[in-house]
Amino acid sequence: MQSQKDSISLTPIGYIRSVFDRRFGTPRQGALAPSSHATFELVPFWRDKGTFDSLEGFSHVWLISYFHQNPSLNSPSKIHPPRLKGKSVGVLASRSPHHPNPIGLTLAKLDKVEKDILHLSGVDLVDGTPILDIKPYLAEADRPADFTSGWAATTGATEARCCFSPQALDQLDAHCSRGAIRDRKRFIALVEEVLRLDPRPLSYRERAQECFAVVLGGLDVHARYEAGVFTVESIQPFAQSTGRQTPAPSNTGPSSGQK
Amino acid sequence: MQSQKDSISLTPIGYIRSVFDRRFGTPRQGALAPSSHATFELVPFWRDKGTFDSLEGFSHVWLISYFHQNPSLNSPSKIHPPRLKGKSVGVLASRSPHHPNPIGLTLAKLDKVEKDILHLSGVDLVDGTPILDIKPYLAEADRPADFTSGWAATTGATEARCCFSPQALDQLDAHCSRGAIRDRKRFIALVEEVLRLDPRPLSYRERAQECFAVVLGGLDVHARYEAGVFTVESIQPFAQSTGRQTPAPSNTGPSSGQK
Repeated sequence: MQSQKDSISLTPIGYIRSVFDRRFGTPRQGALAPSSHATFELVPFWRDKGTFDSLEGFSHVWLISYFHQNPSLNSPSKIHPPRLKGKSVGVLASRSPHHPNPIGLTLAKLDKVEKDILHLSGVDLVDGTPILDIKPYLAEADRPADFTSGWAATTGATEARCCFSPQALDQLDAHCSRGAIRDRKRFIALVEEVLRLDPRPLSYRERAQECFAVVLGGLDVHARYEAGVFTVESIQPFAQSTGRQTPAPSNTGPSSGQK
Repeated sequence: MQSQKDSISLTPIGYIRSVFDRRFGTPRQGALAPSSHATFELVPFWRDKGTFDSLEGFSHVWLISYFHQNPSLNSPSKIHPPRLKGKSVGVLASRSPHHPNPIGLTLAKLDKVEKDILHLSGVDLVDGTPILDIKPYLAEADRPADFTSGWAATTGATEARCCFSPQALDQLDAHCSRGAIRDRKRFIALVEEVLRLDPRPLSYRERAQECFAVVLGGLDVHARYEAGVFTVESIQPFAQSTGRQTPAPSNTGPSSGQK
């Protein structure tokens, strides 16, 4: 570890409430999952002061977050982004959450400002993520006329399709009835967006057809991949409380080699 | 102050070397002063590890910085951006450096990667600024197709012109001869960019013709404004060491109401 003598102390200004209960399945960038709704609320100290006055005219905001699930004690200097299939790049040449300081930068769509609460979409952050700063998106500063995106420009999202088994659709209906899913259409869109990004770690992708699970909005979404299609097999209440292990290893999930 | 119980500790990964010796005169956004050259170097702990490998293909990087000259003990909840001439906005609806956590977000042009050193331009950071994180600019995540920039879209840079007095040009030649200015053309472009952004605080702008100074690359650039023209009167070695006060008050400079 490097010396702590120049250590800087920061305090979260608020926290994210999102549908992503665990790192595994959380999109690599929020823009890739526009259906992912989230809210942000200021901590009590900053409420009732007009801190967000005049923010409503902006379409997007930057969220500078702290990856509280990625303590940086052993940050690597190189990482293996899934899209490069084995090739490594410097950790600071990537958007991996395993940077020396585990700070996230997310451009979220600002749907609505409700006093001290922001309604957002396109958010790639796990539920409960502490937020260090929020800034409006300013085209004159944040939008270069010409740009290149290096190695990350070489590939995009997968071309895979997504479908739901009859059992999964029955369960989906039941979750809607009991209020666990409030917006059926949006939930289906979110599942499709998350699966089409292929959240499986590289090591897992060789085991085709094997079932894996992502947790979205308190629900275990079980799926398997075969020949270009992700099939959702079942949608059940999140199994964490029962102690049952979902097949996907949470500590080697794709966020460890994110972008 | 809010409670420190959730305090997060971060350590700089390196520091910026820039031509901006003081906050006053430092552009509100780096993109507005493309001639502002800067370098970044990793701290020893992160050197010789390939931390920047494959970064060279990206045209731009995000610098997440700590405004070490803006301790946040008394961060305001509202600020008065110069371009709004008196109207206030919530501090989190602005790019002011006086956010609850004094964190900066700068999109810099990446000119060259030299192992553990980055050569950058369009940097709005004071010399010595600690950097917490660096991320490559990724169009798929950072570049929304549609966007609005709220109140900040209403005005742009000033239409003012910039000219140099014969005395200032003589001094410029002398500084070039002794090596204090390495790139004459770039220095002139930088002075023009910085002055045309009108670095003077609002209260100062009513005192037209009064001389003010910005410090660039260790040189005091003295100028005055009249009828749409900034005239550079003299360019002298930075007077800080002599204890002389430059006319522009550093603690009420425009960075206090930045954007």
